[in-house]
Amino acid sequence: MSHKSDIEIAREANKKPIQEIGARLEIPSESLLPYGHDKAKVSQDFIGSLGGRKDGKLILVTAINPTPAGEGKTTTTVGLGDGLNRIGKKAAICIREASLGPCFGMKGGAAGGGYAQVVPMEEMNLHFTGDFHAITSAHNLLSALIDNHIYWGNELGIDERRVTWRRVVDMNDRALRDMVTSLGGVANGFPRQTGFDITVASEVMACLCLANDLGDLQRRLGNIIVAYTRTRDPIYARDLKADGAMTVLLKDAMQPNLVQTLENNPAFVHGGPFANIAHGCNSVIATKTALKLADYVVTEAGFGADLGAEKFMNIKCRKAGLSPDAVVIVATIRALKMNGGVARKDLGPENVEAVQAGCPNLGRHIANVKSFGVPVVVAINHFVTDTEAEVDAVKAFVETQGAEAILCRHWELGSEGTEELATRVAEIADSGVSQFAPLYEDDMPLFEKIETIAKRIYHASEVLADKKIRDQLRQWEEQGYGTLPVCMAKTQYSFSTDPNLRGAPTGHGVPIREVRLSAGAGFIVAICGEIMTMPGLPRVPAAEAIMLNDAGDVEGLF
Amino acid sequence: MSHKSDIEIAREANKKPIQEIGARLEIPSESLLPYGHDKAKVSQDFIGSLGGRKDGKLILVTAINPTPAGEGKTTTTVGLGDGLNRIGKKAAICIREASLGPCFGMKGGAAGGGYAQVVPMEEMNLHFTGDFHAITSAHNLLSALIDNHIYWGNELGIDERRVTWRRVVDMNDRALRDMVTSLGGVANGFPRQTGFDITVASEVMACLCLANDLGDLQRRLGNIIVAYTRTRDPIYARDLKADGAMTVLLKDAMQPNLVQTLENNPAFVHGGPFANIAHGCNSVIATKTALKLADYVVTEAGFGADLGAEKFMNIKCRKAGLSPDAVVIVATIRALKMNGGVARKDLGPENVEAVQAGCPNLGRHIANVKSFGVPVVVAINHFVTDTEAEVDAVKAFVETQGAEAILCRHWELGSEGTEELATRVAEIADSGVSQFAPLYEDDMPLFEKIETIAKRIYHASEVLADKKIRDQLRQWEEQGYGTLPVCMAKTQYSFSTDPNLRGAPTGHGVPIREVRLSAGAGFIVAICGEIMTMPGLPRVPAAEAIMLNDAGDVEGLF
Repeated sequence: MSHKSDIEIAREANKKPIQEIGARLEIPSESLLPYGHDKAKVSQDFIGSLGGRKDGKLILVTAINPTPAGEGKTTTTVGLGDGLNRIGKKAAICIREASLGPCFGMKGGAAGGGYAQVVPMEEMNLHFTGDFHAITSAHNLLSALIDNHIYWGNELGIDERRVTWRRVVDMNDRALRDMVTSLGGVANGFPRQTGFDITVASEVMACLCLANDLGDLQRRLGNIIVAYTRTRDPIYARDLKADGAMTVLLKDAMQPNLVQTLENNPAFVHGGPFANIAHGCNSVIATKTALKLADYVVTEAGFGADLGAEKFMNIKCRKAGLSPDAVVIVATIRALKMNGGVARKDLGPENVEAVQAGCPNLGRHIANVKSFGVPVVVAINHFVTDTEAEVDAVKAFVETQGAEAILCRHWELGSEGTEELATRVAEIADSGVSQFAPLYEDDMPLFEKIETIAKRIYHASEVLADKKIRDQLRQWEEQGYGTLPVCMAKTQYSFSTDPNLRGAPTGHGVPIREVRLSAGAGFIVAICGEIMTMPGLPRVPAAEAIMLNDAGDVEGLF
Repeated sequence: MSHKSDIEIAREANKKPIQEIGARLEIPSESLLPYGHDKAKVSQDFIGSLGGRKDGKLILVTAINPTPAGEGKTTTTVGLGDGLNRIGKKAAICIREASLGPCFGMKGGAAGGGYAQVVPMEEMNLHFTGDFHAITSAHNLLSALIDNHIYWGNELGIDERRVTWRRVVDMNDRALRDMVTSLGGVANGFPRQTGFDITVASEVMACLCLANDLGDLQRRLGNIIVAYTRTRDPIYARDLKADGAMTVLLKDAMQPNLVQTLENNPAFVHGGPFANIAHGCNSVIATKTALKLADYVVTEAGFGADLGAEKFMNIKCRKAGLSPDAVVIVATIRALKMNGGVARKDLGPENVEAVQAGCPNLGRHIANVKSFGVPVVVAINHFVTDTEAEVDAVKAFVETQGAEAILCRHWELGSEGTEELATRVAEIADSGVSQFAPLYEDDMPLFEKIETIAKRIYHASEVLADKKIRDQLRQWEEQGYGTLPVCMAKTQYSFSTDPNLRGAPTGHGVPIREVRLSAGAGFIVAICGEIMTMPGLPRVPAAEAIMLNDAGDVEGLF
């Protein structure tokens, strides 16, 4: 087993020029816009030319409820992609871009781990190709135009108390959560209370990730509601004539980024909407492009299957007309033990009973995913302390759920460790057994959509929402937003809204604290519990240890 | 004469792959980090390998005091570079990057004009290679670390009322000038009054533009003073351990960008510090790299020669060990007329008297530049309404000043229009007549440095500064900052501090309102009058007309 760190492994990667990676998918060199020698954007023109082609098979990688023990969802996505290529399939992976802010706080690393990584790792965790900076700029241009409109006479009659559009920065900065701006007198405008969110929480990010092309993007941006008048009429971004300039700022960011795995297989890394107030999936345009170019596309969704897979199916697939052919649920022995009640410090020794006690969490996710009509395979992401008896216990349990579990060693071995998984997933995807359907119809009333998710996915007994929230949902239905899907914002640690309630709870209530309309992205956000849209830095930020070493390499980022 | 707009001309450019442009300067293709097909960064490794080479000749393009009539300083810089290449010289130009914010307000376009432009123009006015985004990120990381340090116990004893480090955004947004942050309770920190500047005003920008390499950059970033304790002791960025991570964020931004002129000649476009609270020149690393690769390097400095050339000589050249071989002062007939008292609407008809009345402004700049020991050529940037008699009047005047004036038609004709200028400038640069020396010695007391600039460059009779300012300067001298040069922040429209006082005023006083220490960049800023570090948007922002057309091209940016 390797004792090298992720960044050491990444640095030793035998990267190929990105043109060679593109050639694997028959992307002509002139259709790749290079960013250095190992990153490129795929040109809009080329993407536009792919219309007539047949789509490859779409495979979603999701997971049990995350625990501090770590599940390795991205690592497994990369490992499965490499495994499919290893067994002779033409496969690509699609993952999200990393946010810069968190890298300087607690963690870097959104590019896999061990021998299942995407490279160049440092750049992917820093500025990459500038997409998030472009999103930040487009978002903040809209913010500036709002205050500027008010400053110059407020012809649209914006109620300054009802400006819902905040600003964003790709940084963990709690001081910006809540502020009063435009102080200092007449020349600086009208003081009002507002704040900043982190860029991944921007609705511009969600718009970009759900848009089919630049025209669709501009339409969505124009539809963003930024404020209300005193009579509660919405003010749209298009009322401020902001949508054109925002689209111009995003024209390069809309082009998917191509990089490679450690095994030189193609990886699209594009978009990164928050998995709480947004849908937490990579961009539709990257997924669709990959499906035109590869026979198998492996992608992932944020958090556990109750949030990530549910939103992938009900929001991304529904809206983009995608249909998954197979779903891989990642589980680890350690995380199952934690779901079975073991504390993190006690995860080392063999404990088959704890594994079995945690399995119902996995079982619930299997059943939930199957309820979308999609076949499931469980990937046991191997960790060095796992024992054979523990692994066997999971395999036996999964069999009782009408699925199969396969042990994977990609972290340690790369694609050699996912041959069995890749073979089985390809068989299932090719079999055509998937009969995907979203969980609810577009025309179901909004509150019923929330109830359907809460009862069928979370196994809750009821949804708790006061009259104000129900009235708000009804008002949106009257305004024509009733056909939108619902984006649930809930703790990722439990099927319930209590992060400490692991396993497979039933009979709980799901309280809806607030609902928000993302008219540009095209969903209603239902907020259950606290939701953090601007993280803070820890007492000792990772930034303190990040620096260039004498060789000019980045140290401390991971 | 062409009736095409700048952007139409730029779009018709017959661009060559950036590798071919690099080859003109013998930059190996693997030492160019491409950004698309027409932009590249020159790798640090390659720059590091150039140490032993001989430097080319350095030519500064500056101007008379700017007027709304426009002087065309960047246009002339591009035209002269093309002209030198046309006459068989190996020449490169070095200009600044454009700020994103102003593009959505009043103007775009910082890439020349007519047939003397640098391309790709749209991208240079949008995200370009992401340098300004990297500077914004590095600046705001430091801001977040300051508030985070206070939040977690304030071990360094930062006086929250004396945090001088603000935040930045590359946007014109007056609402952010003055604000109270950290509202909302315990979890969001300690409320304090602060604000945002535009990114070009960031001291991080000035540090990057004056640094010789990444090591020097990190040292400068560490030296930035971010706050003071209750006992007025400075808190440095390095006390917060911010310098390493900031350097990591800037490691790509430190690599100069290579693009091309419309005539496929090499252009380095790198850095863009504000010309008021900073020194307003492109980066030292770009200039030094260009000098190693080309026989002639044409560069420019912000505003008129009283500000731009003075700072270029006294700050950039002094600190970087550069020595200009010739200076071109750009003048236009129209701007001279305005300096001679003609209103903008009356600039059309021939008016030799007005031209002559405006010439003393030009004469003063010629004498000032000569006082640095550097030979001067005047470039008359031709405009369609100029008459022969007007041009002759300028030529005759310049001759009386011991220099020569050459008519240039690069805007209309490209390099064909600057053949004469290029020939003469090359002769002068080659002649070795330049005996450059800065205006004052390092060890002159700070207040005397201000007086020297005010009296010798502005022809003021005195500097007005109250005791508080003089005491502050003395305190910095005691703390070891007395050897720093002074960066003057003054209106660009006049030699005096009154923007309406055109021509060549004498006997005026220069009031110093405030002094600031930029310990990282390495200069003292002396602020005379108002200084704007965060612009606002106009009543009808340019953003309203910016959009993609049906062909996918950017419209409305210029």
